[in-house]
Amino acid sequence: MAEPLKVGLAGLGTVGSAVVHLLDQGREKLIARSGRPIEIVALNARNRGKKRGFDLRKFRWIADPVALARDPSIDVLVEVIGGAGDPAKAAVEAALTAGKPVVTANKALLAAHGQKLAALAERNKVALNYEASVAGGIPIIKTLREGLNGASFSRIYGILNGTCNYILSRMEKDRLAFEDCLREAQRLGYAEADPTFDIEGHDTAQKLAILASLAFGTKIDPKAIYVEGISSIALADLDAASELGYRIKLLGVAMKTDAGIEQRVHPTMVRKDAPIAQVMGVTNAVTVDAEGLAPITLVGPGAGGQATASAIVADLADIARGVCNAPFGRPVARMTAIRKAPMQHHEGGYYIRLLARDRPGTAATIARRLAQQKISLESIVQRHPVESAGAAQPGRSGEAVPVIMTTYATSEDAVHKALAAVRRDRVVYGRPQVIRIEKN
Amino acid sequence: MAEPLKVGLAGLGTVGSAVVHLLDQGREKLIARSGRPIEIVALNARNRGKKRGFDLRKFRWIADPVALARDPSIDVLVEVIGGAGDPAKAAVEAALTAGKPVVTANKALLAAHGQKLAALAERNKVALNYEASVAGGIPIIKTLREGLNGASFSRIYGILNGTCNYILSRMEKDRLAFEDCLREAQRLGYAEADPTFDIEGHDTAQKLAILASLAFGTKIDPKAIYVEGISSIALADLDAASELGYRIKLLGVAMKTDAGIEQRVHPTMVRKDAPIAQVMGVTNAVTVDAEGLAPITLVGPGAGGQATASAIVADLADIARGVCNAPFGRPVARMTAIRKAPMQHHEGGYYIRLLARDRPGTAATIARRLAQQKISLESIVQRHPVESAGAAQPGRSGEAVPVIMTTYATSEDAVHKALAAVRRDRVVYGRPQVIRIEKN
Repeated sequence: MAEPLKVGLAGLGTVGSAVVHLLDQGREKLIARSGRPIEIVALNARNRGKKRGFDLRKFRWIADPVALARDPSIDVLVEVIGGAGDPAKAAVEAALTAGKPVVTANKALLAAHGQKLAALAERNKVALNYEASVAGGIPIIKTLREGLNGASFSRIYGILNGTCNYILSRMEKDRLAFEDCLREAQRLGYAEADPTFDIEGHDTAQKLAILASLAFGTKIDPKAIYVEGISSIALADLDAASELGYRIKLLGVAMKTDAGIEQRVHPTMVRKDAPIAQVMGVTNAVTVDAEGLAPITLVGPGAGGQATASAIVADLADIARGVCNAPFGRPVARMTAIRKAPMQHHEGGYYIRLLARDRPGTAATIARRLAQQKISLESIVQRHPVESAGAAQPGRSGEAVPVIMTTYATSEDAVHKALAAVRRDRVVYGRPQVIRIEKN
Repeated sequence: MAEPLKVGLAGLGTVGSAVVHLLDQGREKLIARSGRPIEIVALNARNRGKKRGFDLRKFRWIADPVALARDPSIDVLVEVIGGAGDPAKAAVEAALTAGKPVVTANKALLAAHGQKLAALAERNKVALNYEASVAGGIPIIKTLREGLNGASFSRIYGILNGTCNYILSRMEKDRLAFEDCLREAQRLGYAEADPTFDIEGHDTAQKLAILASLAFGTKIDPKAIYVEGISSIALADLDAASELGYRIKLLGVAMKTDAGIEQRVHPTMVRKDAPIAQVMGVTNAVTVDAEGLAPITLVGPGAGGQATASAIVADLADIARGVCNAPFGRPVARMTAIRKAPMQHHEGGYYIRLLARDRPGTAATIARRLAQQKISLESIVQRHPVESAGAAQPGRSGEAVPVIMTTYATSEDAVHKALAAVRRDRVVYGRPQVIRIEKN
């Protein structure tokens, strides 16, 4: 039998520990599939003393991740430390510089330094694999990098954050407020103590930056992404969406437009019958649109030790077989700078929910402001609040009346201008809710 | 720039012609992705004179597929002739023997001779890629062969035939009879003039044989597959399924059981909220269950020139990059003989629809026969037919009354024995309809 592939493992959190188990359990299968064993020989973690359910003494402990990366006893580094900075970055750079392939689950590192790391991998002719960094158990990186090379992508969009999808699914299913669902997600371990990174869309944005680069051959540019989270979504929006035939999902969307590549993360109305609308709970999904092809959708677990470890082991198996693909599907020199389509030029349908002052002329004012921006309404529903059970009464002047509108395709700019004018006219209370409608 | 990858193309039907166009249009992108151009240099087809929308004179014509495969001017053979026999088989063998990689869309050839061809490819150290052979535009071969190497598969199932899914979707949506939907599918070009191969499940079986081999590391064995088509499915079944919370899909299912690997193709009740239940029309889908992982589902176009050509071009791009994977994910010597789980040992829930004779004792007889086989009912609905509009009347003795039952998990054998006994008791008319329920 061929020599084993000797792995250095940096990081022993949930994912790192799952990798240890999976390589142990899957040993024979991996020999069959890769022609050689894959063995961890050395590892480290922040805390050596922590209980992990396996005997650390079986492996060499090299406390410094960079020293581990450089150590002559290892053939490949698995980095599951996390974070865009050191020691993760230093360890990955050290391994690539030493001519050792790297497998990483670190989306933050790739979003921030993917370009530079890919160049380093290319210069040293080694693989940089990162299937686990986006949508854990779904093989979307391989699909984009190698599986759909015949396709010309026009759009890629997905549910890339399980926390947000869990919260939105639970709000819809059990008619709970955002805050209650967030607290529950934290209790279940689906959300961090500080949930900002997830619920404000930044986690989705890092993953989208990677997918957009693979789909369009562009340099990774997370700063080019428009980001909006889900904390403003109310039950009233989910109810209205449902009545209109939509669900609300936090999507990351990257698409080709005449103005360039649009990259955006925001709550999105998707038609209920779209495959992605069916994806509930912590599950992730990605849909790829390519010219002349029906959409392709991949659905599966987005996180969790086992799913993430499974992706890491698949990446290791490729390396064991001697496969070395360009990290972003093409040589770094062929990755083009992204021409960023400005968000104010985004075109599509919009859902608008506002609280109108119930007094003469309000409807006319709103209609005029929309018309001035050439916005056509597809639907409008105005409901006077029910004051006593069973009987709707005519509203009192100045009372707040919810109005829900959807528009035909228009531009972000037009919607913002129209709503700013409506607010200046003082015919609405508070800030109108605006949710983009994605065609699918 | 590196030398182009020179392609010999055998077959110029819809798919072959789409490959010509796609390689032409995608030239620059493929250079960026593969580091070298991919060019057709020689080709052939059954009919040289047919109009194809491109100039045949740009390419060398080598009329004999075997001569084309062996010709020193080509580096790789693309076989889109189809059929399990010659000339497709002879051409593929000739190319592999000459040390040339092969890309094929030919499921029949792989189901019948995959083992032998893989051995030939292995001996000559060349790739045998066939992404296009199963579920066209969905990268399921790459996903199983390379993408989920860390996973231990327990079950794989899918909608692998667009014709059947189109017919079942249309029956359900528009309440049409099977025959009407089949005729329409033929008119739209979704079904062949002789639709037997599709609607009786044989197309699905060939594809399932390939997927099962990749998922379980077993030798391809289409003869080990239990096959049942959709021609017996009535509107009454779709209606009953819907009431019970299910949809009916023709699935190919391969799963690990204590008795061995079960491979079966049959109409299946799947819960409406399962991702695969949402897949309508000619779309294909595959779900993979692996130990410790949430299910992974891939949805996309299953056929059509563009989708199939896109898969072929992705396979060519891998070859252009020098990637050569074992055709079935492991060396042929490591592919194990399949231990076939006999269909009569299949365990699961069952849907049974029968026409009972409405006379005293019928219900007791049916109940007794089921109980004798230790079958527990989950639900039973018996509806007397409505004789005049608006008023149900007590049935006349001997009249046919539809009875719909679902069972808890039991065995195929038990269901068949119980129903055979019920028929011998002469308490039902005709043959009871039996549809297996798949957990998901």
